[in-house]
Amino acid sequence: MKATVIGVGTELLVGHTQDTNTAELAADLLESGAEVEVSFRVADELEPLVRELAHALRHHDLVVTTGGLGPTPDDLTREAVARAIGAPLVADEAMLEKIRAFFDRMGRPMPEANRRQAMRPRGAEWIENPRGTAPGFLWQGGGKTLLALPGPPEEWRPMWEEAKRRLGLSKKPRYRKVLKTFGLGESQLAEILGPLFAEVGSYAKPWGVELVVHDEDLVKKIRKKLKGKIWGEDEDTLAGLVHRRLLAEGKTLAVMESVTGGLVAELLTEVPGASRTFRGGMVSYTREAKARFGVPEEVLEAHGQVSAPTARAMAEAARRLLDADFGLAVTGVAGPEALEGHPVGTVFVGLATDRGSWARPYRFPDQGRERVRLRAAYAALAYFWSEA
Amino acid sequence: MKATVIGVGTELLVGHTQDTNTAELAADLLESGAEVEVSFRVADELEPLVRELAHALRHHDLVVTTGGLGPTPDDLTREAVARAIGAPLVADEAMLEKIRAFFDRMGRPMPEANRRQAMRPRGAEWIENPRGTAPGFLWQGGGKTLLALPGPPEEWRPMWEEAKRRLGLSKKPRYRKVLKTFGLGESQLAEILGPLFAEVGSYAKPWGVELVVHDEDLVKKIRKKLKGKIWGEDEDTLAGLVHRRLLAEGKTLAVMESVTGGLVAELLTEVPGASRTFRGGMVSYTREAKARFGVPEEVLEAHGQVSAPTARAMAEAARRLLDADFGLAVTGVAGPEALEGHPVGTVFVGLATDRGSWARPYRFPDQGRERVRLRAAYAALAYFWSEA
Repeated sequence: MKATVIGVGTELLVGHTQDTNTAELAADLLESGAEVEVSFRVADELEPLVRELAHALRHHDLVVTTGGLGPTPDDLTREAVARAIGAPLVADEAMLEKIRAFFDRMGRPMPEANRRQAMRPRGAEWIENPRGTAPGFLWQGGGKTLLALPGPPEEWRPMWEEAKRRLGLSKKPRYRKVLKTFGLGESQLAEILGPLFAEVGSYAKPWGVELVVHDEDLVKKIRKKLKGKIWGEDEDTLAGLVHRRLLAEGKTLAVMESVTGGLVAELLTEVPGASRTFRGGMVSYTREAKARFGVPEEVLEAHGQVSAPTARAMAEAARRLLDADFGLAVTGVAGPEALEGHPVGTVFVGLATDRGSWARPYRFPDQGRERVRLRAAYAALAYFWSEA
Repeated sequence: MKATVIGVGTELLVGHTQDTNTAELAADLLESGAEVEVSFRVADELEPLVRELAHALRHHDLVVTTGGLGPTPDDLTREAVARAIGAPLVADEAMLEKIRAFFDRMGRPMPEANRRQAMRPRGAEWIENPRGTAPGFLWQGGGKTLLALPGPPEEWRPMWEEAKRRLGLSKKPRYRKVLKTFGLGESQLAEILGPLFAEVGSYAKPWGVELVVHDEDLVKKIRKKLKGKIWGEDEDTLAGLVHRRLLAEGKTLAVMESVTGGLVAELLTEVPGASRTFRGGMVSYTREAKARFGVPEEVLEAHGQVSAPTARAMAEAARRLLDADFGLAVTGVAGPEALEGHPVGTVFVGLATDRGSWARPYRFPDQGRERVRLRAAYAALAYFWSEA
């Protein structure tokens, strides 16, 4: 089966919004056994959209579109598909009621413009959108299949799964294991792994390096060589592992953050059910805030805000103030300027437990505020993972 | 002039390498006055590449390709172009010497494979590559122009400038203003703006809707119609505006967050110099943490964690505890489960000032935890921006 993807939207074409849809769908179609040789991005204009839809249908068995299903006049996918397949657009009262009900749930009246979203080409069946007002549709005719999905990934992903079910497309499992490491750069990994390194895909992430391996034996060999450096695999996240460990031990964690400004707490609370293990956090972005939250004045006086003793005292204060089993803290310099004589990228992570408290220094390259903060936040989680 | 861009490479098609080339070139072509309605990503395979090149040439005056000019057998752009335009590939001794000289400078012998890079379709002229071994070429015939560039941006960018000089393409500075709104959906904006809406680009962001306008008069008209709904323009961020306003007034802010788990603090501390206006924050992810941070037991008892009075009490506690001029707070339900009978997407933002405190309810669609949290965090900043 030959398949192609059309991303609809002027903003995608010129990069105003980054188009990740067409590549994600192309990769998924490939994994479902389809041949994918080309993808398209088309502006919000009727004529080229009709032309490229017709061209795509001529050379492919399945054409998937994303975007252009909104309520506004520049949302043209419905009309362009209707023209490309030669079927009129028809209104569907039942779908209109569903869209109206969506607005009811938000406590707002449905704007007139949204009526357009209840139109589909005659002969097409709906793919309902559980997360938005733009339903998709599936049309089949003359041996060709066309699937129209909305643009936002969180909306189209469940609809795509539903469409695949209806079309009988299923992933052909290919062995694939992602190994997630911390604390080693790619060139260090290359040295440690030797010739094995050439057989894996390696990708630098803010939390470390990800290795993608397509062979089970190779995974075993790599695990042996990287003992203690692999913190997780596949869909694992550092915050998820921290949550799972705490849950298993019936323990809780509190954090105090300076340089990361809330990022560690945010990562921890991305995990559903986080409130069972995460007591809460403090963002002590100023010296006064650190003191208010219980970091002793004499520690701040003697060592400054960016130091190992302060990181320890912050972790202890977080643990104490929120009555948690563990306290985790981060202080450092994200830039753009140095602080207390410490260059940008200097970071200390502190950990407080019922057995005592510790801190560890880190030094990240100055790759900009955002990058330093991200790496510091992941370093804190990795420190907890390896030391707590 | 109608122009299009073809990105060649299987890795671009499936997103293994992110394709930024086609969007960058499309945007640059637009700025040079060309019409760009579609772009293509094509796998490293001869047949679809020839087909899409021919298709693109049929409908456009200028076709620009990137990628597929390397020395290995899967680099097929040269051959595909030759077939699409119906001209044979010919070797060029002078170019071969230049490629050999490039290797000489690296102190390495030229591999035999690189001979292919000295081939061009008959009638095409070279565009030299100052930064690599892959020269590009420019072909013109039958009123059509085809430009083949290599894939790496640092290589093709100077070559693209050279090609534009030869083609007489020059950037026409084009007026562009981005207006950033909050609190209205795209369909509501379409209603308010009426026919003006068709003349702007509108893009939904987690903080609201962004309008891109290419006409100065139109900007004035839209500003008038959307008074009080536009919070910023161009590179403005909500956190940056909050910081600037506080700085101008010599005031400070503290936050307490539940549902957003640190995201509001994180957005505020992304701004360089944030410590001058941001006192710090608390992540009161549990009921106990809220109480510890000073939310009165009787408020939690009477109204629960997700309520307007609790949001107000959280804002007051943040203001008090960190001795700030303003306290800002968010509580709500990000999911996956409802909380205290409130459905996912229920959010309350509280604001405490020296003149009293307020709270406002929001209701976001359940588009997943991450999206609800993002929208809640931006709602809090926008509430501060409009009410403080």
